[in-house]
Amino acid sequence: MELGMIGLGRMGANMAERLVRNGHRVVGFDPGAPAREQAATRGIEAVASQAELIAALPSPRALWLMVPAGDPVDRSIDELLPQLSAGDTIIDGGNSNYKDSMRRAQRLSAHGIAWIDCGTSGGVWGLAEGYSLMIGGDEAAVERLRPIFSALAPTPDTGWGRVGPSGAGHFAKMVHNGIEYGMMQAYAEGFAIMQRKSDFGLDLGQVAQIWRHGSVVRSWLLDLSAGALERNPQLDGIAPYVADSGEGRWTVAEAIDLDVSAPVITLSLLERLRSREDDSFADKLLAAMRNEFGGHAIRKS
Amino acid sequence: MELGMIGLGRMGANMAERLVRNGHRVVGFDPGAPAREQAATRGIEAVASQAELIAALPSPRALWLMVPAGDPVDRSIDELLPQLSAGDTIIDGGNSNYKDSMRRAQRLSAHGIAWIDCGTSGGVWGLAEGYSLMIGGDEAAVERLRPIFSALAPTPDTGWGRVGPSGAGHFAKMVHNGIEYGMMQAYAEGFAIMQRKSDFGLDLGQVAQIWRHGSVVRSWLLDLSAGALERNPQLDGIAPYVADSGEGRWTVAEAIDLDVSAPVITLSLLERLRSREDDSFADKLLAAMRNEFGGHAIRKS
Amino acid sequence: MELGMIGLGRMGANMAERLVRNGHRVVGFDPGAPAREQAATRGIEAVASQAELIAALPSPRALWLMVPAGDPVDRSIDELLPQLSAGDTIIDGGNSNYKDSMRRAQRLSAHGIAWIDCGTSGGVWGLAEGYSLMIGGDEAAVERLRPIFSALAPTPDTGWGRVGPSGAGHFAKMVHNGIEYGMMQAYAEGFAIMQRKSDFGLDLGQVAQIWRHGSVVRSWLLDLSAGALERNPQLDGIAPYVADSGEGRWTVAEAIDLDVSAPVITLSLLERLRSREDDSFADKLLAAMRNEFGGHAIRKS
Amino acid sequence: MELGMIGLGRMGANMAERLVRNGHRVVGFDPGAPAREQAATRGIEAVASQAELIAALPSPRALWLMVPAGDPVDRSIDELLPQLSAGDTIIDGGNSNYKDSMRRAQRLSAHGIAWIDCGTSGGVWGLAEGYSLMIGGDEAAVERLRPIFSALAPTPDTGWGRVGPSGAGHFAKMVHNGIEYGMMQAYAEGFAIMQRKSDFGLDLGQVAQIWRHGSVVRSWLLDLSAGALERNPQLDGIAPYVADSGEGRWTVAEAIDLDVSAPVITLSLLERLRSREDDSFADKLLAAMRNEFGGHAIRKS
Repeated sequence: MELGMIGLGRMGANMAERLVRNGHRVVGFDPGAPAREQAATRGIEAVASQAELIAALPSPRALWLMVPAGDPVDRSIDELLPQLSAGDTIIDGGNSNYKDSMRRAQRLSAHGIAWIDCGTSGGVWGLAEGYSLMIGGDEAAVERLRPIFSALAPTPDTGWGRVGPSGAGHFAKMVHNGIEYGMMQAYAEGFAIMQRKSDFGLDLGQVAQIWRHGSVVRSWLLDLSAGALERNPQLDGIAPYVADSGEGRWTVAEAIDLDVSAPVITLSLLERLRSREDDSFADKLLAAMRNEFGGHAIRKS
Repeated sequence: MELGMIGLGRMGANMAERLVRNGHRVVGFDPGAPAREQAATRGIEAVASQAELIAALPSPRALWLMVPAGDPVDRSIDELLPQLSAGDTIIDGGNSNYKDSMRRAQRLSAHGIAWIDCGTSGGVWGLAEGYSLMIGGDEAAVERLRPIFSALAPTPDTGWGRVGPSGAGHFAKMVHNGIEYGMMQAYAEGFAIMQRKSDFGLDLGQVAQIWRHGSVVRSWLLDLSAGALERNPQLDGIAPYVADSGEGRWTVAEAIDLDVSAPVITLSLLERLRSREDDSFADKLLAAMRNEFGGHAIRKS
Repeated sequence: MELGMIGLGRMGANMAERLVRNGHRVVGFDPGAPAREQAATRGIEAVASQAELIAALPSPRALWLMVPAGDPVDRSIDELLPQLSAGDTIIDGGNSNYKDSMRRAQRLSAHGIAWIDCGTSGGVWGLAEGYSLMIGGDEAAVERLRPIFSALAPTPDTGWGRVGPSGAGHFAKMVHNGIEYGMMQAYAEGFAIMQRKSDFGLDLGQVAQIWRHGSVVRSWLLDLSAGALERNPQLDGIAPYVADSGEGRWTVAEAIDLDVSAPVITLSLLERLRSREDDSFADKLLAAMRNEFGGHAIRKS
Repeated sequence: MELGMIGLGRMGANMAERLVRNGHRVVGFDPGAPAREQAATRGIEAVASQAELIAALPSPRALWLMVPAGDPVDRSIDELLPQLSAGDTIIDGGNSNYKDSMRRAQRLSAHGIAWIDCGTSGGVWGLAEGYSLMIGGDEAAVERLRPIFSALAPTPDTGWGRVGPSGAGHFAKMVHNGIEYGMMQAYAEGFAIMQRKSDFGLDLGQVAQIWRHGSVVRSWLLDLSAGALERNPQLDGIAPYVADSGEGRWTVAEAIDLDVSAPVITLSLLERLRSREDDSFADKLLAAMRNEFGGHAIRKS
């Protein structure tokens, strides 16, 4: 098939290359010249504007957005819309909020353009191993793009699927990331307990390697952790600072909206916020209160 | 009445003075000369050994232990036991583990000596305002000491009571402190949220003052917080480092032993542990994992 | 002063009566005839429409809204706006979201009408004990209403204050309720631990009474809990079902938006959600997983 | 090699069979005749007493305990000890507390008998897929048993290893199970959120299948969950009741002892306790308090 890839960052370029490797033609756009030059070396036809990209593709077109979630997606749509024709399809492969995806699907459907929200997991390993794709949107549109999804997924028949109507794909991806937070935190706490128990002199990389085979906690995240801990057992030089990219927050908010108690996913998010506090006012007030009622000494900051 | 106070630290000396102010005779022992000298200025007959203290009191004796929980209590008992007579009573007013209190009561009962565990709350304010006393142990022994408890409590008839057999007093005190952790954390989080919301320029001391009167969250801890926040609105110079003294841990362990889910008390303890981590291994591993799967940048430490 | 009270439910009628008791004239409106009749017996001039209420008050008018948060507030404003004059003031004493209050203040300011958001705490006890009032909005408008706030508060000079610009009052009230959730949960967990520890036969009402005097955990919520536990020690007949009214959710969302980790307030909310789950899918899946990997028996539902 | 297997329950019999399949001779003891008969059909030489088992094995003997943790292990040792000789080795493959393992190693070392604590993961799938083995104890003793560990593990060189001195194996297994709790809870919450979001009509088994390939959350627990959800999408007939077997509690206690904040592992345990509460006193008290201060209606139980 032929596909336009809008956004040639790490994720977009890797996905485009995987499609090219599988025999598809990919025309890619990115506003940055270096990204375009890089892409060109990977078999992607890089162009310098969305207009060129549209011109380079036959109708009905399939355009894959791989741009940051939020305004950039709407800006891209604003620019594309006047140039597209009924029957074209836009796929949003980024981490958009599922409510935005529902809104965008409605907007585009008025123009006869299909909108597919495709939650995409796999990170930097997706190029080699394939991506896991949770897809929401019109059934026929998804079916038309079967060759694309099959090529991106780990195997043609696994790791991808239409899970429901517009929004359902990004909803599933949002929850996926919430679970990811919880799993990561569970491992992180476990290894931290073992690291602190210095009497046993545990080699955390070795323990992780043992667990990778036959244990109940084996997983891909464990595979990655094993690698990181083998290369750098004490994680020297790494700051205890953990970013978050939005889906965890949405999952927490969604759970509360649905009246579902999700303490572990929620605490995983809060722990990331906590990792970025360097002078917690709450803790200062706790120290102050202890001093007030019990005369307990306060540490000077 | 006449009472021996063993341990003239901040709590012991204050309680002794409150008893003296209420017309009781208190003989006090402390191994430290400065503590004894200080006590002497407050109407307490300070002596330099437990033996002298025993000698100075008529039978049946009442001895109040106000020493650090754990081994010091057992060491004190070891030394006292050969010198005491059947009919004497020892009261442990410290923060002992209730299981230790049950064990000690049994040990002493074999010698005809009553053991009373008296959970004591009130901190440095107890001297002026009276202490809240949760008492476990033999009913008759507690009754004999009514004048003492009445004098220590805020009023003769409130703020103290025998709550059950040996161990029950320290059990209730343990739970009291677990609740205290949870309440403190709730306030700390709330004020931290207001402090971070800089747009409104809230004066946290003023808000606390408003809440002290008529609000649902009014409490003594809020009174103290209001004072601290009025004197030092940004809590300058106070390190975000929160100690814990044991009862919180016991409450968490006890809740789990009893199959009671107590998430807020538990998290309050964990937050204190967290306040003392300056280089969380868990957070470092989270950052490393994010880098492994998503290529997300790591902050250098 | 003269004040119009819109909404004569439990809170509105009580506040109106407290104003009347303090010598103010209150004209009250409620769409329900029984509420109006009830109000009339309490010294409130009850009218059957907002229009009548406006007509009954001299300019510049002061109108106090005590209606459910959300759309009812906007609907009330929609109806009032055409009938009001520049210089009038509307006070929202309900539990509105602070962002709505900011929006409404801006809307009304275009018409020369002042908007005051007044977070109100005190519940059913406010009539007798006074309300705690956290006030946001224009300084001059707040000052004009000083006699009203002074009468509603526990004493003329305590328990109320302007804490900042529009929105600040409802923001402080939102956080107040978040803290309230955390405190309540801390007490609830502590008493649950004591209730489960049946060996000691603790009388929970007695323990609560002891703590009310001199302890670190004394508070108004404890006063209320003591009453409830004395009257009904095992809380017989009360379902373990805990509602929530919105401010807790907002506090959790706000904390996350501000990147403040507030685990205890957050868990307090989740515990309420949990109390309303009677057939947790998460727990069913946990049981299913244990069966899958370990052959552990599943309980039939 | 030759090995004695003490305990022919599900785990013990499976491990014995895996050894037999790999060419080892296994003499097995179980007090129950049916377990022995079953074992005999699987190539295990089943005997009716520990004495027979000892007699059937050449020196130096290797005895593998697969009995419930706690007293049964000590009782087994008590009976074995007089009949064993210096140079023999006992391996505890159960879920013993690591502190017990340290104590037992010391006890046996006085008799020249090696004690190996072998944390064993893999559940009912271990027979086919191999077990993950975390081993603590004397290096030479572990080395002697290399053929046994190699046969039990998924492959001769992966999934097993000596991680440290006595206790280290069961310590690592304890933490493994703590992590397991956290991961399970993360998945459970995520699927519960999707189940509640009924608008999208998500097929949870399908979503799990998609995630199994290429996603960040792929894992063995997810493989199992996918199976369970495909066979029974709404988990009908499964009670939301989640047992726990001890290691989670120990992990929580150990983390606190080490001053490590492990909120997610901890909350995962508490959630299991919560799943078994059918009439939470804490929630009843919360409902009572809301009624006390706000007049909010209470649900009758």
